[in-house]
Amino acid sequence: MKKALVVLSGGQDSTTCLFWALENFDEIKAVSFDYGQRNEIELEFAKQICEQHNISHQIVNMDLLSELTNNSLTKHYIEIEEKEGGVPNTFVDGRNMLFLTFAAIVAKNNDIRHVVTGVSQEDFSGYPDCRNVFIKSLNTTLNLAMDYEFELETPLIFLNKEETWKLAYDLGVFDIIKENTVTCYEGKPGAGCGECPACKLRSEGLKKFLERKEKNHE
Amino acid sequence: MKKALVVLSGGQDSTTCLFWALENFDEIKAVSFDYGQRNEIELEFAKQICEQHNISHQIVNMDLLSELTNNSLTKHYIEIEEKEGGVPNTFVDGRNMLFLTFAAIVAKNNDIRHVVTGVSQEDFSGYPDCRNVFIKSLNTTLNLAMDYEFELETPLIFLNKEETWKLAYDLGVFDIIKENTVTCYEGKPGAGCGECPACKLRSEGLKKFLERKEKNHE
Repeated sequence: MKKALVVLSGGQDSTTCLFWALENFDEIKAVSFDYGQRNEIELEFAKQICEQHNISHQIVNMDLLSELTNNSLTKHYIEIEEKEGGVPNTFVDGRNMLFLTFAAIVAKNNDIRHVVTGVSQEDFSGYPDCRNVFIKSLNTTLNLAMDYEFELETPLIFLNKEETWKLAYDLGVFDIIKENTVTCYEGKPGAGCGECPACKLRSEGLKKFLERKEKNHE
Repeated sequence: MKKALVVLSGGQDSTTCLFWALENFDEIKAVSFDYGQRNEIELEFAKQICEQHNISHQIVNMDLLSELTNNSLTKHYIEIEEKEGGVPNTFVDGRNMLFLTFAAIVAKNNDIRHVVTGVSQEDFSGYPDCRNVFIKSLNTTLNLAMDYEFELETPLIFLNKEETWKLAYDLGVFDIIKENTVTCYEGKPGAGCGECPACKLRSEGLKKFLERKEKNHE
């Protein structure tokens, strides 16, 4: 029996991965991290999706993340700025690495080897810990750290947003992903505020996917 | 100016590393992790040592560690057992990896590249995340995760307890290490309870060091 733990934020990417995992594994558990993020509504969506699909879901409190760093994703009074050519100031250094390390600990405690994450190096906005080279290195480090054969599963790693929409469509969950996930920095579900970098990326990908679908049906 | 961040538990090894770092770097900062461990007195000792030597010291709350795992180091009601040929049940899977990842985040936020840890693969009791191969892999992963040139410094990695006592002696801090550090699982400072595996390892190393010193002076 193949078991997987899905790192679930409640956003488009990780929720798509949850359904990908439901197709590819016999038993699924999900873990989310509560780190005082602006968009707490993400966690609500993560919770609801798991309840609706009878998926065991653990929320880990990571308040301490905001003790460590200064940035606009956890400190609500800092304005979100998009810097030219750099990472947006929503970036929390090392965040993915921490989340995946915690997830691996939870996984091993549940006798789960496969840990699924929705990182993509196509749309990585300069985040170094969304690159495939980092994921490979982390996989080795985790295996050495715990003497365990983890497999980090990254179904979206080489997909852009258009392709991620296509994956959701192929999995038969296009509408769920479109309506019941939160990508927006302002915490608005679905199409979101339409203005923040995350909403723009999401809507541009969706537009391209729908255009291509339309064209192919002609 | 060379700066270093020392991961300080208040035990023999990390406190020896603190003094090693004071010799080898121009500016030192220390970080400790409060994870509801049995021996909270360790943290008190870490704090005192830093105050006495004017070292900036940050304590990071890691209560969430006990949410994740079941073990006798954080769950006080579980009896400590020493398993034959395996790791003691004080082991928290992935703990060193988490601590070093958090430490690296703190380091980068303070423009510090060098992170000092007292891990030793000589006395590692089967802990996979005390091995040199793990440290090297983690160093690479951290550098990729944060796009930063971390150097994990492990002055004790190839030292046994006798040699660690010698290092403290050579650094001129033998008495401080002997009296003002806590190794004991029961939280008794200095020579400790004398019964737990950590106390035995510490006292056997001390005995060997003193015997060799005595012999060399003859």
